[in-house]
Amino acid sequence: MEPKAIQELYPEKFSHCYGCGTRNSAGLGIRSYWRGEECVCSFTPRPEHMAFPGFVYGGLIASVIDCHSTGTAAAAAYRHEGREPGSDPPLRFVTGSLHVDFLKPTPLGPPLELRSRAKEIGARKVVVETDLFVNGVLCARGTLVAVKIPEQMGGEPRG
Amino acid sequence: MEPKAIQELYPEKFSHCYGCGTRNSAGLGIRSYWRGEECVCSFTPRPEHMAFPGFVYGGLIASVIDCHSTGTAAAAAYRHEGREPGSDPPLRFVTGSLHVDFLKPTPLGPPLELRSRAKEIGARKVVVETDLFVNGVLCARGTLVAVKIPEQMGGEPRG
Repeated sequence: MEPKAIQELYPEKFSHCYGCGTRNSAGLGIRSYWRGEECVCSFTPRPEHMAFPGFVYGGLIASVIDCHSTGTAAAAAYRHEGREPGSDPPLRFVTGSLHVDFLKPTPLGPPLELRSRAKEIGARKVVVETDLFVNGVLCARGTLVAVKIPEQMGGEPRG
Repeated sequence: MEPKAIQELYPEKFSHCYGCGTRNSAGLGIRSYWRGEECVCSFTPRPEHMAFPGFVYGGLIASVIDCHSTGTAAAAAYRHEGREPGSDPPLRFVTGSLHVDFLKPTPLGPPLELRSRAKEIGARKVVVETDLFVNGVLCARGTLVAVKIPEQMGGEPRG
């Protein structure tokens, strides 16, 4: 049996995201899987996701890094607590800050392959670093500070 | 006569961007206008651009800041050279790095109102700071390092 993506384990109320929600039919459908000590994602841009003909649009790169990194934060936080991903109470993160370095023009066509690691895991915050490869070439690198979803967006009350 | 958006003055070969290209019919259609000492953009997210019901997706916020900031870089560079926007040789920038601080949950529905300033203008690089407001409330802030489009992506040879 295929392991489920982190996004498939989010509670229904947190599954509407344009980037990665299983209940957003117009969205990108980003999916993240834990493998060993990192979290991986493979995403193939649509033909229209271009910056210029032949190259991927930077906003799409930022978007994929964003959702995959908040997914990585959730998966890492469950592991840190010794809990099964998706178990209650749910762990769901939003982006506090996002930094992306665009290292090389990213060719449009092949899948973007992302590999993420949680560098810091705090009580309410996880720092995630992500490398984005195309055809084995490192094209972009992201750092995201993920914070537990605030109560006003549907999160658990702050204990 | 309405002034043209910066993106309407890009040469045809640089007008295919998913975020802001006039020749990408599936894209977001981001448009930027110079006003006084800053560059402004108003963008209304589509209903599906949600993070959670009622709130804008962070990747969309990053995308709008991205295109509007590279547009601001082009407009600022033309002004810096004392040239009309769109005059030859064309000035077109790509993103070297993008940093976004998500300061508040951003309500989905009203337009995102962006105001950008060029903080540094160098020979090949422009640093742009952007504030993003919804209903007058500052929701996100971006810093983008824009670099002149490299030759391999269709830019002018480096002099």
